[in-house]
This record gives sequence, C-alpha cells and structure tokens, in this order.
Amino acid sequence: MKKTALVMAGGRGERFWPYSRRNRPKQFLSLTPDGKTLLQLAVERILPLVNIEDIYVGTHADYRGLVRHQLPDLPQENILCEPVGRNTAPCIGLGAMHIARKHQDALMLVLSSDHLAKYAPIFRDTLSEACQIAMKGDNLVTLGIPPDYPETGYGYIKFNSEISQGHAFSVDHFVEKPDLETAKQYLRSAEYLWNSGMFIWKVSSILSRFRQLMPELYAGLLRIQAAIGTESQTRTLQHEFAQFESVSIDYGIMEKASNIYVLPSSFGWDDVGSWLAMERTHATNESGNVVRGNFVTISTQNCILQGGDKLIATVGLKNLIVVDTQDTLLICDKENAQDIKKVLENLRICNRTEYM
Amino acid sequence: MKKTALVMAGGRGERFWPYSRRNRPKQFLSLTPDGKTLLQLAVERILPLVNIEDIYVGTHADYRGLVRHQLPDLPQENILCEPVGRNTAPCIGLGAMHIARKHQDALMLVLSSDHLAKYAPIFRDTLSEACQIAMKGDNLVTLGIPPDYPETGYGYIKFNSEISQGHAFSVDHFVEKPDLETAKQYLRSAEYLWNSGMFIWKVSSILSRFRQLMPELYAGLLRIQAAIGTESQTRTLQHEFAQFESVSIDYGIMEKASNIYVLPSSFGWDDVGSWLAMERTHATNESGNVVRGNFVTISTQNCILQGGDKLIATVGLKNLIVVDTQDTLLICDKENAQDIKKVLENLRICNRTEYM
Repeated sequence: MKKTALVMAGGRGERFWPYSRRNRPKQFLSLTPDGKTLLQLAVERILPLVNIEDIYVGTHADYRGLVRHQLPDLPQENILCEPVGRNTAPCIGLGAMHIARKHQDALMLVLSSDHLAKYAPIFRDTLSEACQIAMKGDNLVTLGIPPDYPETGYGYIKFNSEISQGHAFSVDHFVEKPDLETAKQYLRSAEYLWNSGMFIWKVSSILSRFRQLMPELYAGLLRIQAAIGTESQTRTLQHEFAQFESVSIDYGIMEKASNIYVLPSSFGWDDVGSWLAMERTHATNESGNVVRGNFVTISTQNCILQGGDKLIATVGLKNLIVVDTQDTLLICDKENAQDIKKVLENLRICNRTEYM
Repeated sequence: MKKTALVMAGGRGERFWPYSRRNRPKQFLSLTPDGKTLLQLAVERILPLVNIEDIYVGTHADYRGLVRHQLPDLPQENILCEPVGRNTAPCIGLGAMHIARKHQDALMLVLSSDHLAKYAPIFRDTLSEACQIAMKGDNLVTLGIPPDYPETGYGYIKFNSEISQGHAFSVDHFVEKPDLETAKQYLRSAEYLWNSGMFIWKVSSILSRFRQLMPELYAGLLRIQAAIGTESQTRTLQHEFAQFESVSIDYGIMEKASNIYVLPSSFGWDDVGSWLAMERTHATNESGNVVRGNFVTISTQNCILQGGDKLIATVGLKNLIVVDTQDTLLICDKENAQDIKKVLENLRICNRTEYM
C-alpha cells in the first residue's frame, strides 16, 4: 500500500529562545553538528521509506517560506498551511484530506518535525512494522517510547499486554503529564510508555474516526477538500479553520477510539526539549563545554555556549547556558532552563514582541 | 603660590575589558551614575583649587582626541602627549618642564585620572594642606590612604610618626605590593599607608630631584623643554622619549630622595580597580544587581550587568559580571574578576588584537 507522510511543523516552541524566535521556531533550527535543521532531518530520515512527492508538511502560513527554503525538493503543493494554529487534530485532518484526494487509500505516517531519532534505520524498521499493523482493519498505531526515567513533561500510554498485534499492544488509555510520584509508579509498573506523538494509520481509518468522533471538524474538512484546486481554496481554508476548535488528536480521537495500538519503540528518540539537549547531540570538549561560535573560555566548565561572530569571553563559569544572537542574549543557569519561558512572559507583558 | 596640576591619563588599564579597550582605556570611561568619565571627574574635582588653564593632562599620543573631546575647555597645548609610554617618571618630568616654562616656580599637584575621590571637598582640603607642606623647603609630599583591609594589590608607605610637618609624617620607606601575610602585619602595625600615587610639590623641588637622581632623564627633559614652540618640538619629543628608560616616579625619585612626607588622607579614595567597583559607585537593586542596559532578569542576584541596546535575559544567575559591547561580550564570575587578564593574554597570543 502507498506510504505517505505528514510532517507536522506548525509549532512555535519557545524553549530554544533566543535562537528560536516566533519567526523561526525550533523545527527550523540546526541543533545537531551536521548543520541540518530538525525539519530537514525529519524528512531525510523517512526518505528511504516514503517518496518526497508523498510527503506533506503541515505548518502555519507564516512558515511557508521557511519550509520551501529548507525543503527545496518538496512539491510546493505539499506544504499545507494552516491559517491559524488549531492544535494537531485539524492539522492531521487537513493532511488526511489532501492525501485522500490523490489516493484511493494510503498509509499515512504522522510525524513530528522537531524531534530526533538517533537510530534512523531502526526508526524506519519501526515505521514499517507499524504500517503492517495499520494495514489490518482500521487499526490506529502510535509509537510508544519505553521510559528510562520518571519524566513529568511527557504524556504516557498505558498498554494492555494481553492484546497484541505483532509487537504492538492494545492501548488501555492515555494519560496527561503526571506528577513525579505518579511518573515513578509508571516507571516501576512497566505498563506505561511515553507518548511520542507519532502515528501510523490508513487515511481511510483516520477519516472514519473523524467522521464518528469529530463530526463538525470532519464536515469542515470535507468543505476544505472540495475547494482544493478551485479559486475559493484559500478563502474556504481560512473560513473553516477559524471555526475549528483547538483540539489535539490525542484528546479528539486517540483517547476515544477503539483498535488503538501502541508499538514499543527504541530508536533513540529525543524530543530536543530544551537547551540541555545540546549535550546529547554535540560532543563536549575536555572541560565539558559544548561550544558553537567565537568563544574564549577561561576556567569554564560544563557550559552550553552558542554564539556567532561576536567574541564572547567566559571566565569562571559553571553549568550555564549562553546563547547570543544578533539582537538578544540569554545567560541561564542549566538548573533554571525551564524559566526561559518567564523571560518570554515578561516580554509579552511589556509588549516587547520584537524580541520574541 | 600658583597652583598647577598634572593629571596623568596615559594608562592602558585592562581590568574593565571589554568596556575598556586599547583605544578607550579606563580613564575615558563612565563608571559612575552621573555619566561623567573618570578623567572628567578628576579634572572637575580640582577646579575650585586650580584654574583650568593651569591643568595639564599627560597622556599617550593615541588619546589626544579623547582628551580634547572629553575636556573641551582645557587649552589644547596643555595636553602633553607622550609618543611612547615610559611609566610615570618621564611623564611627570615632561609636565614639570612645561609648567616651569610658564612660571618662575609653582605648586604642582600630580594626580591620577582613573581613581575616584568620593568626598571632593575633603580631597581639596587635603590637597591644600599638602600644598602648605610642599611650599616649605624642597619637601615632596605624597598622599597616603589609611588601609582598612590587607590589600595585596597596592604599594604601601611606611611612615615615621616622630618626624612630622603639619599632619604629614616623614616617609621611612616605600614598599611594593606585599603578600597577604605581610599586608596583615602592615594593617596591624598602623605604621603603613596605601600609596595613592598622588604627589604635591613645587616644580623647582621635583626638577632638582630629577637633576640629582635621574640626570639622564633630566638632560633629555631639558632638550624637550628647549624645543617647545619650535618646529623641532615633535621630533625632539619623539627622539628623547624613545631613549628614556621606563621608570616609575616611586622608584626613580620617591624611594631615594630626602624630605619626603606622606599626608594621611581620608577622602573616600577608590582606585576603581575592577568591575567589582561598580557595586561601590552604583546603587544595587532589590536583588543586589547593578544594572545598566536593556536587561530582563529572572532569579538573578548580586550581579553586575552592563550592556547597551541589545536585549539581555539572565535566568538563575548569581555573582556574575556581564559586560556586553558591540563586538565583544564578557561573562565572568565575580570571584574570577582578576582572570579577565587571561582573556587578554589569550587574545594577544592568538594575535586577535582587534578585540583588545
């Protein structure tokens, strides 16, 4: 069966501020030593499995230019621009409608644009296996990552090990980000996986779920589909998206549908969730520093240092993140990396959006 | 007797790098909230005592433009430019020759351009008293600061409390920067003062000492004096200065001459010796930070933050110095402030003098 993919690239992630900005969010940044952006890596990674003309990128209209620039080989009509962000359900619905218009039916891989898969061949094998399961009946398959520590920033999936399809297990239920105590229980129980936010299904399977479980969204998507290629395409898209509720695919479909399977997957998944990820993706030097830019470091240890041409001298620093850009500079203790969002709140309150 | 002053402004102090640079050393920087530069403050402070046309500024030829710009009321011919830096003895000799050319004899205050005197009226009273002592015989007077902690970065003056002139004591001997144990002994003994590097004497008194104790320098200075106002002025100055040994006035004269007096002085002297001085000259905010520039601070305490227009966000920082300029940025732990010179050594070794 034809394999297609929707790479979701509409996020506005703020945790790499100030390297990430509203006009260039995380997926469009290079955060690995190869110089490629996360979006480029996300597409490159599946190319042996899916033809470039069958890959769709769902993004915000503001980022069309970035996607074109970073993926010059992608057919322009495969850049699906949401006029407003409405979370993942409308984005995935839009992708499914575009694919359904071209193919009787097809497999659809729904992938994130801003995560890493360290072991790409294993990742592709996992996707192939997920495709096998998704081809049967109307199964919806999600990839679950075996937790190796009690992370409180991810959603979890409780699986039922007694019902399986190949290596995948039936999903018992999804859970939102737990508190630390709960996360520790999950880890001990060995019955929970991290929710990777990646899905594999037939287009027909997901569309029938939209019809059953999100009928209003489905009706709007049908109107959008009917307008594709007509002169009212843009107007219809804008009109319908404005009406859509902001709902995640997890909440709108996955938590309510039947025949949901989770495939435990270990392909070196990394959500690249904060500046601390740089220490996983880059070699550290003999002082434990990750250095990109024009730095002179004196007695500086275990720092993440990112700059440009400007000369940056660090003296006596430990465990800091330094990120210099043209008009903004961040200096942040690693322990406080999650407080970068407070800087952005402050900028928002003070209406200094030019720095966001 | 006529009062004249020589303000020495030839230093290349590196401890305020990168705010200070080779082309704009410390004395030309504003390090106080009033926005005036240290040089401007040094001149302003003595104006009630010395007429502007009797104030001379000794500096390096490179800084003539800066002095003119910062002291527009100073007669241009009072900017005495050394073609090469040769420490304080030649600088003071040059000043004395210029003053001697205009006045039969005069009092000469030799002052630093890059220190602060918090209590300017007390400072002027001290200078007036020093002038009284200097007018007697050929006394050379230096200002000594009663130490309040065992500083190892200053020179000390041992005085003999049994021989005095007014409030000044006869100098027993000068000592170089001591080690900590010695500095503690000095502090306990109450017979030592910090060497402020400021001197008061008659021009005739210091010139006679040059003649006795530094005859080669004196001969050169006489040739320079003879050329003042002639077409060979610049050539003679360059030729003679190139021959001069680099010698401090302390070593060349003060340690060897007789009739040296030290006047214990408490006028809030501050050598503004490092970035830490900002905490003495500026109010700290409720988090203990000194902030000049466009900063957003989150959980940031006891930091010295200096920038310009660029937005700088600090998160979770403690006890750091951050100094941002157009092309260079310094981030330094307060404990390591003395290691800023290692950055400059590194730049020198790598021949990156454009950043120095």
